[in-house]
Amino acid sequence: MTLQDIHSPADLKALSVDQLNDLATPLRDALLQKLSRHGGHVGPNLGAVELTLALHYVLDLPTDKIVYDVSHQSYVHKMLTGRMEAFTDPAKYDDVTGYTNPAESPTDLFNIGHTSTSVSLAGGLATARELRGEDYRIAVVIGDGSLSGGEAFEGLDHASAIKGNFIIIVNDNQMSIAENHGGIYENLALLRQTDGQATCNLFKSMGLDYRYIAYGNDLHTLVKALEEVKDLDHPIVLHVNTQKGKGFAPAEADREHFHFSGPFDRNTGASLSVNTESSYAELTASYLLKMMHDDPTVAVITAGTPGVLEFGPERRAQAGRQFIDVGIAEQEAVALASGIAKGGGKPYFGVVSSFLQRAYDQLSQDLALNNSPAVIGIYYGSILGMTDATHLGWFDIALVSNIPNMVYLAPTCAEEHMAMLDWAMNQDRYPVALRLPGGKLLSTGRKYPTDYSDLNAYMVGHRGSQVALIGAGTFYPLAEQVAQALKAEGIDATVINPRFLSGLDTPLLDELTEDHTLVVTIEDGVLDGGFGEKIARYYGPTDMKVRCYGVKKEFADRYSYSDMLEANRLTSPQIVKDILDIIK
Amino acid sequence: MTLQDIHSPADLKALSVDQLNDLATPLRDALLQKLSRHGGHVGPNLGAVELTLALHYVLDLPTDKIVYDVSHQSYVHKMLTGRMEAFTDPAKYDDVTGYTNPAESPTDLFNIGHTSTSVSLAGGLATARELRGEDYRIAVVIGDGSLSGGEAFEGLDHASAIKGNFIIIVNDNQMSIAENHGGIYENLALLRQTDGQATCNLFKSMGLDYRYIAYGNDLHTLVKALEEVKDLDHPIVLHVNTQKGKGFAPAEADREHFHFSGPFDRNTGASLSVNTESSYAELTASYLLKMMHDDPTVAVITAGTPGVLEFGPERRAQAGRQFIDVGIAEQEAVALASGIAKGGGKPYFGVVSSFLQRAYDQLSQDLALNNSPAVIGIYYGSILGMTDATHLGWFDIALVSNIPNMVYLAPTCAEEHMAMLDWAMNQDRYPVALRLPGGKLLSTGRKYPTDYSDLNAYMVGHRGSQVALIGAGTFYPLAEQVAQALKAEGIDATVINPRFLSGLDTPLLDELTEDHTLVVTIEDGVLDGGFGEKIARYYGPTDMKVRCYGVKKEFADRYSYSDMLEANRLTSPQIVKDILDIIK
Repeated sequence: MTLQDIHSPADLKALSVDQLNDLATPLRDALLQKLSRHGGHVGPNLGAVELTLALHYVLDLPTDKIVYDVSHQSYVHKMLTGRMEAFTDPAKYDDVTGYTNPAESPTDLFNIGHTSTSVSLAGGLATARELRGEDYRIAVVIGDGSLSGGEAFEGLDHASAIKGNFIIIVNDNQMSIAENHGGIYENLALLRQTDGQATCNLFKSMGLDYRYIAYGNDLHTLVKALEEVKDLDHPIVLHVNTQKGKGFAPAEADREHFHFSGPFDRNTGASLSVNTESSYAELTASYLLKMMHDDPTVAVITAGTPGVLEFGPERRAQAGRQFIDVGIAEQEAVALASGIAKGGGKPYFGVVSSFLQRAYDQLSQDLALNNSPAVIGIYYGSILGMTDATHLGWFDIALVSNIPNMVYLAPTCAEEHMAMLDWAMNQDRYPVALRLPGGKLLSTGRKYPTDYSDLNAYMVGHRGSQVALIGAGTFYPLAEQVAQALKAEGIDATVINPRFLSGLDTPLLDELTEDHTLVVTIEDGVLDGGFGEKIARYYGPTDMKVRCYGVKKEFADRYSYSDMLEANRLTSPQIVKDILDIIK
Repeated sequence: MTLQDIHSPADLKALSVDQLNDLATPLRDALLQKLSRHGGHVGPNLGAVELTLALHYVLDLPTDKIVYDVSHQSYVHKMLTGRMEAFTDPAKYDDVTGYTNPAESPTDLFNIGHTSTSVSLAGGLATARELRGEDYRIAVVIGDGSLSGGEAFEGLDHASAIKGNFIIIVNDNQMSIAENHGGIYENLALLRQTDGQATCNLFKSMGLDYRYIAYGNDLHTLVKALEEVKDLDHPIVLHVNTQKGKGFAPAEADREHFHFSGPFDRNTGASLSVNTESSYAELTASYLLKMMHDDPTVAVITAGTPGVLEFGPERRAQAGRQFIDVGIAEQEAVALASGIAKGGGKPYFGVVSSFLQRAYDQLSQDLALNNSPAVIGIYYGSILGMTDATHLGWFDIALVSNIPNMVYLAPTCAEEHMAMLDWAMNQDRYPVALRLPGGKLLSTGRKYPTDYSDLNAYMVGHRGSQVALIGAGTFYPLAEQVAQALKAEGIDATVINPRFLSGLDTPLLDELTEDHTLVVTIEDGVLDGGFGEKIARYYGPTDMKVRCYGVKKEFADRYSYSDMLEANRLTSPQIVKDILDIIK
């Protein structure tokens, strides 16, 4: 049987286990062929080839259900469920997303791109099954790295209450995105060392049945084990020991790099997209490393994504105990930062915009209510950031700036970013969030103030009249561009860098009413709950007109930057036209 | 020694343990005296009297630190740290808040009112201690009920990385607010049964040292145990078995009722604030119970607060497996609801506004992105709700309504609430949040539509001209009141019930521009990121003036309703005056 013969899991059923096993090599080849050209999650999928084959051989989808945590190990599932060509035909590579997606197949139950959600979501399916008196099997595939997220713990804790078949496969490849951190990983190691026999067992201590599979890349073992548990009438954890990157030597050797990789050389693994340009993350990391060296009380925290912060293994080694990876546990990261600040340390927590969503209450209660002077560095908080529906960096302005006490800064270029970072790390009065600008690094060569303690003091880049353009963060240059274009129309527009997303410069806003009739806000995020609306509310009772630019509230998926900007009229010609229409 | 002689923990140091033990009775008496008049957390504090005495006897505050999870067991700590009179002098009862509060004492490290945060926050202190090369002891007191929250798990998982002394006291009184739910509680029971000797041990499986104390209300035992661990150089869990409500028979007997109680008879425990009025929660519970009876696929979910939903023991028994308490685990609750909806069930998750903050990402990713038709019932989402800084119900409009796909309904009275609830529970297209109005139950006798599938269609209560008043949820009657007062000024104002907090009725808003010059929004929450700002943004480029009412972004604490309304001009005379000023 060739890959082209597999149109659905049913096609696997007639095969012997040996025949099924023969598919592993072509599946890996196809994966590597695509990923080496296209990029994607390499290691997690290579390690889960046999596991996925076994699941589809033993279970009956779509009647039975499989929920893949964070979807990082779902590519082979996609290949076996009617989407093979998206992995074998380069022209169709983008026919599928990188995540499970109900729009693609009835075997995908949920859109999932954040970790640690699978047990809870599948637990809901199991609850519905019970209430409806139905009878089907439910499996969850969750990596060891995802276990450290609070939602996964909550899900496992509740799982013991689930009635009927519920197979929680812990795909233990001994890695998170980078190495694992957390006390539970000692227990997983103990369980591996004792062939699952250790009596101190995390999963059993959560009330769950448990079984260990030492050879998780051996298909015969997997099929046998799944056959044995597939009709159990209660939840069980199947702890499966697999090898991340299995079958591709470079990915086996450098498991962190090949967790997710851009295009690479199919033979050597060498990256084909070497990026020598600097970035805001790179500048930030360099600054923080130096600061840590100079001040032993500085702590840089990540929740399992050191690479996002540009803290690769080398920098981590240099930072020593001052670099803290709490595992995928954003709630812990924010609360820890608050505690460190309260204890007199200087914490910086760097986090992807979309993942900060997992710590809203910690931002509010643990950090802001306690006014702890920690710094939250927000990465990919931009329309010009990640474009998957599960990773949109659009929502953090509404998330952060509407929490009392939070000071949310939006630098507009490298120089201002560094000035704000330096101020934030050296002040001890406010919880500060700092939004790394989107897009390529912009160096303006301009000088910026070093003190931002005069909260909500906007900076006037150019004082004109009639029209004021407030360009926040990434979009300040766009505001400047619009001002330039308006000159040709005889309008000398004021250009303002608000710097603060979390408050209004009311003296300045009042002053503008004297010789302006229109204020335009341009922000790099969703309009709803965002920055511009605060300006609109402030001017609401006055004669000042306000036009807000940002993106519409939606879960867009895999959009092109230019289309998204155009659709939301976030281009200079569109904004100029709108302005002329309003003030005409 | 009498209670009046205790001004700080230092006053305890000279006592023998027997003398210290003599304080337990007067401390309990004072607690009961205050709580029977004033209300508060009864059971948790009565159970922790000896534990708190022992902690302050063995540790040296404020040099050493204690962090109390959720503060429900912090009253005795307050009594021993300079705040005795707030418990012995009725005139001073309100000199202290119900939560630890750094403004009151240097022995209170954090404002804490949400559960499950203590280990993480204290872990931050320990990290700072290490980085600064300091040397002091850190203890955490966390109840067994709080363990089920994801943040607690994340904190425990990371705790094994903490260097130096770190004493995690699990105060196991075998109760959450109501009974515990979750697999870990089987393990706690096993540990109690085996005097802590069972080899399957949740805490050890998280990499932590562990010790069990069977007699957690015996001061000699506690002091001895704390003396033995107080200078350990690594984290340890001290699992202490205590009796909730200890020393007050009614609280020992009905531990759920006396977790938190209003005023009660000091002798019998009988409630002195019997409330026979109905409430939105009561109506909702009654509806849901009937619906569950009629339809076995309906599931009502709580995250450890069945009482908030008016699902006491009797209703829970009637609901059977259709009432699901996931423990204090809001992330699990939202994800579970999404999974149940996806599996064809009809889930309703009832949650306190402030606690929903713990599940922002689950609302976004697990629920809304997947468009699962679950219903989130939001309780105390109102300025007229809880007034503690840790429990403000002001932020949920910004939280929920800015997430794509979420439909957020704000009923204005009992009749409309029931109509919306009925629609939400019987539709299968949208994730719906429903905001129970604040204040007393309002029954208008009016009829309301039964279908809300025409999203964002506002309801015009009265069509006038010049001024339009959009009164959302709780504040619709205020809008009517303002309209009434405006009549006297010769203004026939339009009154609109927006019904939807999550979107705009743009045809109606456009139509208003024909014969209105001012639109006023009145909402029951913080202005920033809220409903009114969306209206202000929409009208920004037009001649329409907009004035938004709501509360200012701040962490107010223990405010009076009337002061808060007045300070934010949320009274009819103030609004009328503002309107006249604007349109004059």
